[in-house]
Amino acid sequence: MSTLPVQYPDYSPGILSLLPVYYIGWADSILSPSEVKLIRKMVNQLDFLTITDKRQLVEWTNPANPPSEQLFKHWSTVLQKKAKKLPETSKRSLVQMGLEMAKQSATDQEILKWQTPETEKALRDIESALGITDSPVAQAIFHAPPSEQKRFDVKALQVILDDSYSETRNQMRTLLSDPAFELKRLPVKEDHRNQVLEWCKHLADRGFGALSYPEAFGGKGSMGHYIAVFEMLGYHDSSLAIKFGVQFGLFGGSVYWLGTDYHHKKYLEDIGSLKLPGCFAMTETGHGSNVRGLKTTATYDSETDEIIIHTPTEKDGKEYIGNALHGKMATVFAQLIVDGESHGVHAVLVPLRDDKHNTLPGIRVEDCGYKLGLNGVDNGRIWFDQVRVPRANLLNRFGNIDEHGKYSSPIENPGRRFFTMLGTLVGGRVSVPRAGLSAAKTGLAVAIKYGLKRKQFAPKEGLPETTIMDYPSHQRRLMPHLAKSYALDIALTYLTDRYVNSSEEDIREIETLAAGLKSYATWFTTETLQECREACGGKGYLAENRLADLKADTDIYTTFEGDNTVLMQLVAKGLLSDFRKSFHDEGFMAVLRLLAKQVTTSLTEKNFVNTRNTDLAHLTDSEFQLSAFKYREHKLLVSVSQRMRNYLRMKVPAHEAFLRCQNHILELAHAYVEKVVLEQYIERLKTVEDNTIKNVLKRMCDLYALSTMEQHKGWYLEEEYIHPNKSKAIRRVVDRLCKEVRIDADLLVDAFDIPKQCLAAPIAF
Amino acid sequence: MSTLPVQYPDYSPGILSLLPVYYIGWADSILSPSEVKLIRKMVNQLDFLTITDKRQLVEWTNPANPPSEQLFKHWSTVLQKKAKKLPETSKRSLVQMGLEMAKQSATDQEILKWQTPETEKALRDIESALGITDSPVAQAIFHAPPSEQKRFDVKALQVILDDSYSETRNQMRTLLSDPAFELKRLPVKEDHRNQVLEWCKHLADRGFGALSYPEAFGGKGSMGHYIAVFEMLGYHDSSLAIKFGVQFGLFGGSVYWLGTDYHHKKYLEDIGSLKLPGCFAMTETGHGSNVRGLKTTATYDSETDEIIIHTPTEKDGKEYIGNALHGKMATVFAQLIVDGESHGVHAVLVPLRDDKHNTLPGIRVEDCGYKLGLNGVDNGRIWFDQVRVPRANLLNRFGNIDEHGKYSSPIENPGRRFFTMLGTLVGGRVSVPRAGLSAAKTGLAVAIKYGLKRKQFAPKEGLPETTIMDYPSHQRRLMPHLAKSYALDIALTYLTDRYVNSSEEDIREIETLAAGLKSYATWFTTETLQECREACGGKGYLAENRLADLKADTDIYTTFEGDNTVLMQLVAKGLLSDFRKSFHDEGFMAVLRLLAKQVTTSLTEKNFVNTRNTDLAHLTDSEFQLSAFKYREHKLLVSVSQRMRNYLRMKVPAHEAFLRCQNHILELAHAYVEKVVLEQYIERLKTVEDNTIKNVLKRMCDLYALSTMEQHKGWYLEEEYIHPNKSKAIRRVVDRLCKEVRIDADLLVDAFDIPKQCLAAPIAF
Repeated sequence: MSTLPVQYPDYSPGILSLLPVYYIGWADSILSPSEVKLIRKMVNQLDFLTITDKRQLVEWTNPANPPSEQLFKHWSTVLQKKAKKLPETSKRSLVQMGLEMAKQSATDQEILKWQTPETEKALRDIESALGITDSPVAQAIFHAPPSEQKRFDVKALQVILDDSYSETRNQMRTLLSDPAFELKRLPVKEDHRNQVLEWCKHLADRGFGALSYPEAFGGKGSMGHYIAVFEMLGYHDSSLAIKFGVQFGLFGGSVYWLGTDYHHKKYLEDIGSLKLPGCFAMTETGHGSNVRGLKTTATYDSETDEIIIHTPTEKDGKEYIGNALHGKMATVFAQLIVDGESHGVHAVLVPLRDDKHNTLPGIRVEDCGYKLGLNGVDNGRIWFDQVRVPRANLLNRFGNIDEHGKYSSPIENPGRRFFTMLGTLVGGRVSVPRAGLSAAKTGLAVAIKYGLKRKQFAPKEGLPETTIMDYPSHQRRLMPHLAKSYALDIALTYLTDRYVNSSEEDIREIETLAAGLKSYATWFTTETLQECREACGGKGYLAENRLADLKADTDIYTTFEGDNTVLMQLVAKGLLSDFRKSFHDEGFMAVLRLLAKQVTTSLTEKNFVNTRNTDLAHLTDSEFQLSAFKYREHKLLVSVSQRMRNYLRMKVPAHEAFLRCQNHILELAHAYVEKVVLEQYIERLKTVEDNTIKNVLKRMCDLYALSTMEQHKGWYLEEEYIHPNKSKAIRRVVDRLCKEVRIDADLLVDAFDIPKQCLAAPIAF
Repeated sequence: MSTLPVQYPDYSPGILSLLPVYYIGWADSILSPSEVKLIRKMVNQLDFLTITDKRQLVEWTNPANPPSEQLFKHWSTVLQKKAKKLPETSKRSLVQMGLEMAKQSATDQEILKWQTPETEKALRDIESALGITDSPVAQAIFHAPPSEQKRFDVKALQVILDDSYSETRNQMRTLLSDPAFELKRLPVKEDHRNQVLEWCKHLADRGFGALSYPEAFGGKGSMGHYIAVFEMLGYHDSSLAIKFGVQFGLFGGSVYWLGTDYHHKKYLEDIGSLKLPGCFAMTETGHGSNVRGLKTTATYDSETDEIIIHTPTEKDGKEYIGNALHGKMATVFAQLIVDGESHGVHAVLVPLRDDKHNTLPGIRVEDCGYKLGLNGVDNGRIWFDQVRVPRANLLNRFGNIDEHGKYSSPIENPGRRFFTMLGTLVGGRVSVPRAGLSAAKTGLAVAIKYGLKRKQFAPKEGLPETTIMDYPSHQRRLMPHLAKSYALDIALTYLTDRYVNSSEEDIREIETLAAGLKSYATWFTTETLQECREACGGKGYLAENRLADLKADTDIYTTFEGDNTVLMQLVAKGLLSDFRKSFHDEGFMAVLRLLAKQVTTSLTEKNFVNTRNTDLAHLTDSEFQLSAFKYREHKLLVSVSQRMRNYLRMKVPAHEAFLRCQNHILELAHAYVEKVVLEQYIERLKTVEDNTIKNVLKRMCDLYALSTMEQHKGWYLEEEYIHPNKSKAIRRVVDRLCKEVRIDADLLVDAFDIPKQCLAAPIAF
């Protein structure tokens, strides 16, 4: 049955103004009965339409008689023709397009009718009611195809990522490309450990170990350089990064930060050159996260002027201590007891082995055996049986025993003293997430390069197969992670800068920041490498393709340097106590002001228009994104505070009240970290001068912001901060951004400039 | 400043009816200005309140003057006293309690006022407006403390989980407890592989290998028994399960299902006894998921009556083939070419090695090397260079070459033939998720036992530390996974039963089911073991505690037997084609009926009351839960179908249209699988006779259903299927269920009856 071609009349300006919306409405989304009802009602209310216009437009919404295929085709032709005449811009909404087309065909007098804000609003309402803003079809038809996107200069982007330490990074790139650093698979842990030790010596020989120590001891006095090296090692065998961190960061760091001149002169140079390998013996089997409750004792014996290190029971042994098999000495954290009085946890240097590498009397070391990963690090357990060391071995910067056997400390309060001691070690929390991020980047580079090369399934027999990176599900898997890796890079650089330049005033804030970013970034690493493995299928499971080790090695980062869940609670505690302080200081009026502020917030942030605004320009507006992130943090902060206050008022004990709010509290901590990450990204963008690079980075920022909002859409909808249509629009924009980022994906991973030897996965080439 | 005790008057019935709501409103949630406004308005509308009542109730909502601590305490005393007099029941809402208390204090005449449905509705509206149903404080104060929950008989529960194969399971429990099966860590892959081969021989010697083959070949003709053994091996070293599956399931299965009498007689007994170890050589480097596009050829040479197996180019080599190093023979999948004509993919038996285990001429085997896990399985790559085998080696059940060199097949259509051949191998998709589930259960058992034992952080110095399983965040981590493991156990048992009893009519449906459940369950395994590892901190990272291997070994299950993302698309395609068929059959009227049905659905399912109903009894009603799951599946099915139809109408090519809807399609597949799981759980519950067990299982079912809904709350809110308050209420009920399930957690993992030797993690004891 053939049909004769139908002649369609020219459309009136009124029809044209709605044609794009109708076309997309029918093409891309579902005109449900309620939507049909709504459009009809709205169309009838538009007073710039003629009766004929209205009749036609209502007719076209009949679900029992949807536009025929020919009519549809005609619409498409009309729209494409008209669209060509419009000035070029990529961010035109359907409504704007409709209006411009209407104006093209209208008389001068008619044009006046179209130029009112009411008209635009009325049309926009229809668009929004249908939730069709920026549909993929709309893009395909009206916007420039994304393949015309401009490419950019990879080197210029790399310079931005390399931040202030590009020289050190480049030195490390050269070193890690040396045949001596070729990655090897050594399944027997002893072989692997020896290889890692050897690599570590290479690094020490070239001065990389001592970077954070003063020049007098072979260093550069720069934690920033140390962290840059550590981050670069994250691309290589992670066992090396961790071994390096244990020796130079933790062991050396404890001597440097907790010790005084005597210790620095005696040990630092040998530590930096790896002549004196050592351990950082803090964690005990019974006490992982709760360091304050450690059981090992360091009892001062005034008769011999010695300190006796002792493990009370089997389960109080030091656990998971890196370098335990290779180490000659350990910084042991123990309860210091002087003259029968306990002064809390202090650090004492304890020799472990003699020149022939035999353990010294009273010391027992046990290998932790194989682990999920990091088998190149010699973790062990250590027990002390009344081991005596000279008084001078106490790392005495924050607590000293003088020659008369008297204890004294510059910090009176034992709680504050303890936290000050721990605080000097915050470097670990700044470094670990950076090495984790390098591993995630390596995984992304492998998976993305594979995804751009690998083809599977043809549209039809005989046609070429589709590149798997062109599958939207594959883009969804990898692109938001790629964007987040950029966001985290910027946030961690910010953290490093803050940390390197910290003063006594802001160290508390930086500790909170470090705890939060460490957790957020290491969870990201675990999640990303899992996606990358799955995205590479069976190939991702083979050791030769790197992902296996990257994944297994970094899995523990969420536990290292403080368990993430515990750290996130610290973050929230910090936020809550700052918030509570504002109450104490200002009293009850503050509560009222707060409530008042809440109302204002609801008015400004949750007003009808914003809640429903689904424009691309609005959704990709940094101000909107940041205010949404801030709203979430603020709302959670207020609600947790109030819940806590109410529980306390009901005489629920504080610990119990905290427990009851625990999940709520963890959500708050997340919201805070996410806000910081977005805020810093937006700040960083402002300083980028090259516009092409800026656009690329902005697109990634949008993808980070909107995919994060999408993750929390349940919360935003519960709070009625966004309307369901806006939530759907966010999903569509994320899909679109994934598609756009995919085009640059190869360059975006090239900008990491990962040393080739570290990327040595056959599927990545 | 001390305050004299205040004398409070007795409360009127009107005040009492609202007292529980007020108490909880002030204690547990935040009375925001808009909420205060709302309560005041509602209170003023309640005509059963006196003017004095109203004045007092409005006064108590003043945010500038919230109830004093003493008043609060007084409320608490009143409520507790009154609550004691009420009949015992755990599912009383705040409103019901208020009403009952009011009745206790009211005159007979007054009581009449309270008994109208309007009164109850008015009160309920307030409760719902505040979103305070079933708050944790309400439970703590008014409900029996959860520790009084009744314990249950573990054995009785185990019998349910062991389903129809308890005898086989118990035999396996005995065997896996034998010292010969003690788990060992053998880091060098060759040692590990030899150990696994030895274990496999033990299993074959005891007849476990041949279970699925007919009795004539040493078996029991029962796939059900085979699957039960495979599932039990999932508790042990997973390399053994996979090796077992490759030999007896894939290699043996291909001979049994694709071969005919000749092959059965010649090979099956030797395969079942492991005298003939073999491979299943399907996947090629270039073609993982797209099996139809395999490049290896099997060309019939009529002159010699042989078939020539050939790998055209290097990248067409067989990849990832299990048993490649130990195997003597392989079932090779290749394009069968007879007389120059290609007949699509067929399977041919090809000898690989001679008696001395040297590879035969033309055959090249390469070790895949180390992998993320499963290093006890000898995966390799195989290339064939013009290898000749006799014609009889064609597994010819679905395609035969006769003695005249003529090809024939009982299935005319090559596409259908191909899918029929693959369909006979669906057993792998039924088995793999079961072994994965065993691994997840083992992980849960380790993590939960550790969580119940491990203590960290004391409420105050001097007090005992808190058991980590009492932290709500820890419960949130593990309890929903525990509940889901039960849900999946029931669903996979259902799948096995359907598969074992399948007929030609329902095999398509079972394939869809298997593809969906395989994906859903293996993703669950990966996710669960990750949570378990993190929940055990550093201890979880040590190989001795099992989680490392469980996690690494099962990570590939999401790719094995079909990549999950690809399988989920198959599932959706099945659903969509069934749906489309109903259009073709019934024509356009069907579309209209469908739309009409949608409206009805909106009316019945999304009416105001249900959308906002936050009662515990409603939320834990299986009917509500299932209808929510069904709504999601149906809605997604309709919307994907319509989108697809519209794209096609716009002349978007089918492949392209499918791509554009891909993420939508994957969501549909998920919704379908989740519906099946819940449906089967509810069905299973109906047949449980022991009421204590039934209650335990119902609680787990509720936790599965509601935590799954919580995961999708963004979607439900977008669809306005639930109101924000209901979404919050679901979160609270999930918190509550986590707490309740935690009490039984030890027994719930004991009911798995995992062989002790498989659970041999020091932290689990």
